[in-house]
Amino acid sequence: MRARDLVAPFPTVGLDTPVVEAARLLADQDLPGLIVVDERDLPRSILPGTQVLRLAVPTYCQDDPALARVIDEAHADAFLRGMQGRTVRECLPPEPRELPVTDPDATVLELAALMARTRSPLVAVVEGGSLVGAVTLQALLDRMFTV
Amino acid sequence: MRARDLVAPFPTVGLDTPVVEAARLLADQDLPGLIVVDERDLPRSILPGTQVLRLAVPTYCQDDPALARVIDEAHADAFLRGMQGRTVRECLPPEPRELPVTDPDATVLELAALMARTRSPLVAVVEGGSLVGAVTLQALLDRMFTV
Repeated sequence: MRARDLVAPFPTVGLDTPVVEAARLLADQDLPGLIVVDERDLPRSILPGTQVLRLAVPTYCQDDPALARVIDEAHADAFLRGMQGRTVRECLPPEPRELPVTDPDATVLELAALMARTRSPLVAVVEGGSLVGAVTLQALLDRMFTV
Repeated sequence: MRARDLVAPFPTVGLDTPVVEAARLLADQDLPGLIVVDERDLPRSILPGTQVLRLAVPTYCQDDPALARVIDEAHADAFLRGMQGRTVRECLPPEPRELPVTDPDATVLELAALMARTRSPLVAVVEGGSLVGAVTLQALLDRMFTV
């Protein structure tokens, strides 16, 4: 079994997609994460759901649990408004990282190791300069237990 | 809205649960991760799905993409067998980390910041020395977009 047997179409967002729209896509389609594509429709970044969430959390609260606690309920519920007007481009992690991207020949073991190493519950599959789709952790686990 | 409004019962595994059983639970119930409890039924570790997957990948392949690629298909499909006989206890990350655990009073902002910081798509909720359940990333996102 190879990546080509597990890959499925996966929605993408662009660098200019509003953060609110990206988060809504994640919520509505129950996705494990998002593929951010560049102008050539190739993966520029792959964000696990928790890192999409990071886009919605004000910077001053991310590393200060005490501060997030004292901000009262009304403010906390309103933090979505902080996402307004921001695009995905503005929120990508600055440091270059290994992207969970592979090709259709990747083995199950390779997919699993890549997901574990990059902590990404989805791997984008690229072939011949085009994005084919993604293999999700769930798809991989499902196949591991049905073979 | 607080953690108490978003928390739901969540299955747990013990330190002596076989790794195969833990991975199967994740696959069968489509969970974002697992809560590993200690003898007192309190969270000892919380493993995102990708880190449960790590338990299934032989150590010698985790950090060597080239090795995972050259191992042929038959071997890759068989790597589940490497999990046989191992328990969750043997596979937990050695270093102590901040656990994504909170109490029922946590605000939405606090939950979001905790998930983002610990890269965990689930947060365990503990009250009065007992595990109440978990808030998942999906539950949090769903509520963010329906308020």
